[in-house]
Amino acid sequence: MNGFAAKRRYIAKYRNGQLAEEEDEIALEFPLTVVVNGEEFATIVCTPEHMDELVTGFLASEGVIRVKDDIQAMAIDEKRGFAYVELTASKLPSMEFYAKRFIGSCCGKSRQFYFYNDMKTAKTIVDGISAQADDCLRLMEALHEQSTDFAATGGLHNAALATPDGIVVIRSDIGRHNALDKLYGYCLRHQVAMKDKLIVFSGRVSSEVLLKAAKMGVSILLSKSAPTTLALDLAEELGITVVGFLRGQAFNVYTYESRIIIG
Amino acid sequence: MNGFAAKRRYIAKYRNGQLAEEEDEIALEFPLTVVVNGEEFATIVCTPEHMDELVTGFLASEGVIRVKDDIQAMAIDEKRGFAYVELTASKLPSMEFYAKRFIGSCCGKSRQFYFYNDMKTAKTIVDGISAQADDCLRLMEALHEQSTDFAATGGLHNAALATPDGIVVIRSDIGRHNALDKLYGYCLRHQVAMKDKLIVFSGRVSSEVLLKAAKMGVSILLSKSAPTTLALDLAEELGITVVGFLRGQAFNVYTYESRIIIG
Repeated sequence: MNGFAAKRRYIAKYRNGQLAEEEDEIALEFPLTVVVNGEEFATIVCTPEHMDELVTGFLASEGVIRVKDDIQAMAIDEKRGFAYVELTASKLPSMEFYAKRFIGSCCGKSRQFYFYNDMKTAKTIVDGISAQADDCLRLMEALHEQSTDFAATGGLHNAALATPDGIVVIRSDIGRHNALDKLYGYCLRHQVAMKDKLIVFSGRVSSEVLLKAAKMGVSILLSKSAPTTLALDLAEELGITVVGFLRGQAFNVYTYESRIIIG
Repeated sequence: MNGFAAKRRYIAKYRNGQLAEEEDEIALEFPLTVVVNGEEFATIVCTPEHMDELVTGFLASEGVIRVKDDIQAMAIDEKRGFAYVELTASKLPSMEFYAKRFIGSCCGKSRQFYFYNDMKTAKTIVDGISAQADDCLRLMEALHEQSTDFAATGGLHNAALATPDGIVVIRSDIGRHNALDKLYGYCLRHQVAMKDKLIVFSGRVSSEVLLKAAKMGVSILLSKSAPTTLALDLAEELGITVVGFLRGQAFNVYTYESRIIIG
């Protein structure tokens, strides 16, 4: 067992014109404060499952670490909601990089990253994998089937790392970004290659979601929901295939459609 | 016209085993940096509609302002994505309050606020209004009918301020919190009373959403989606009725069910 996603609670259900008391499952929301080398770094509001992976993935995504061994020690105080991280390098990268908006053009292109650390850590995909249309449909179905907590609480987002053949690992969280950070952390901690994988995701594809996929080095992002304009602009620059509105037997391909093979 | 929510774009749609190019509407995502008294305060990623309301509501929600007149001047540079705000009081409240986690018990109770400014600005509801079950069902239906942008892009959250009789104002955003901040800003700018209103909301009820409702002084929050445990704990302390999973003819009442009148 690695934490809890939900808690039972008595609520009043209105059905057929009547209110009746009934027990239900409510998604847990847990504030976790991350302390890096003795300094408070951020508070993540999350589902308290797989918090070690969450912290690892979050720090990688923020550009604080690159590999598992950049973390010398991690201790999670589940009661008080603190994660204490000691980095191998003695000095935390200058904090001002994490707050400053980065504006400017890069090599004559109008890169739309707005935080410096995004520019540092997002990778441009050069080749990437491809997937059959049927694989995409099947993977979204598998995500749905394996998401038992969402079914119970209706309050969780699900993200999975997959090959075209099937799901490798699935993680859930009340926060869309946290679900992806948990996947990222899982891969770093278990040294799972990400370049030859897809992400299968229940949530909307914002710029932040797209950047997380880019940081992981994944070339195809499948989502049940809608993307934003900024996410698609970034996907075009970073070489990522975005597939959205994957529902039933239909989907939309927004960028790099050549990676999706028909028939 | 007050900004734009979506942009048309050619995409590839997979239907009946075939990919075909088609035009579609994609939700805009726009980074807006808020500068207060010459100092960079935050960057909000938002739908670029009603940005004056967004900035007003955001600053009120953060505890920086209380009333409309606390803002002496506001200028929005829509091209570069900056909002410049001059406060009436010459001095911005000390920035450290906005970053520090607040832990401790308050008057012997275990208040779960984790940011100091939340504790400062959230109000406990002492009386509040009530609503018929039928009103709740009708208001959620009205939110859905009036949400044209969501229908087009699938990527927006909707929030409305309402009386039991109908919707007063509706605002949309790619960010759940932004949609609420726009409502809050609208009320402050037009001096609309919030105490005798309900919020009708498409998104999930996290602690942050609940705190925003509390700051606005609203006593009933209707949502199409699920709440979290922390949101419900806060709702109990702050005296707010949370109604969730409002779909079709059914809903759940999680807290203070006496405000929902049956039959």
